[in-house]
Amino acid sequence: MLRVEHIGIAVKQLSNAIPLFEKLLNAPCYKTETVESEQVQTAFFQQGNTKIELLESMTADGVIARYIEKKGEGIHHIAFEVEDIHAEMQRLQTAGFVLLNELPKKGADNKLVAFLHPKHTSGVLVEICQEISNGS
Amino acid sequence: MLRVEHIGIAVKQLSNAIPLFEKLLNAPCYKTETVESEQVQTAFFQQGNTKIELLESMTADGVIARYIEKKGEGIHHIAFEVEDIHAEMQRLQTAGFVLLNELPKKGADNKLVAFLHPKHTSGVLVEICQEISNGS
Repeated sequence: MLRVEHIGIAVKQLSNAIPLFEKLLNAPCYKTETVESEQVQTAFFQQGNTKIELLESMTADGVIARYIEKKGEGIHHIAFEVEDIHAEMQRLQTAGFVLLNELPKKGADNKLVAFLHPKHTSGVLVEICQEISNGS
Repeated sequence: MLRVEHIGIAVKQLSNAIPLFEKLLNAPCYKTETVESEQVQTAFFQQGNTKIELLESMTADGVIARYIEKKGEGIHHIAFEVEDIHAEMQRLQTAGFVLLNELPKKGADNKLVAFLHPKHTSGVLVEICQEISNGS
């Protein structure tokens, strides 16, 4: 793992959460993006070389909506940047971790992503991500 | 806020969690530290310029033990480095956030720290922290 690329935060409504986090972080939301495959709308803030990613579900039974129903709004996942997502998925599987997707999938912010089952990571939903280059 | 200084993760037992996170992050635990005032034992990992801080309660009714009882193991807080913790506490209070401690207190890793009530931050326990300099 190279660094913490972003921290994902589950919120009920971006319309409330964006101005709240702008006040909290004293920094502007610099981008919003819809991720159709995950049925989420996202909003990004830069903090040093790490991003804060707010996540709102687009559907009542989406993964973020269900998370909030169970646990309330709050920190949802940590995403670590990796150099080679295929190699890192292989390394983690060999080390005994369980992947939630067998192949990397397209996430927000021009990334290939994979998630690890939190059951095997002390309850932490871990994402690994790699920037999609033009040649990918 | 300058950057994400660390992410705090509540775990039941450091003795299990340290080797688990060493495998997960592919990085060594470089420091453990007891914070008597908070009754926690901590373990640190470096990821880029952000740290992962594992937290184990030293008492059955400590804040981390109670967190795990209620929510299970998992991500506990995000800590943002600030340049001037007193000025930032003032700014946040004026912006309507609620501080859990009125004055900065001594935290782990040679820091002055303050926490914000998660009720006003979309459920996220936010810490702000400033390195204690020799002159402080």
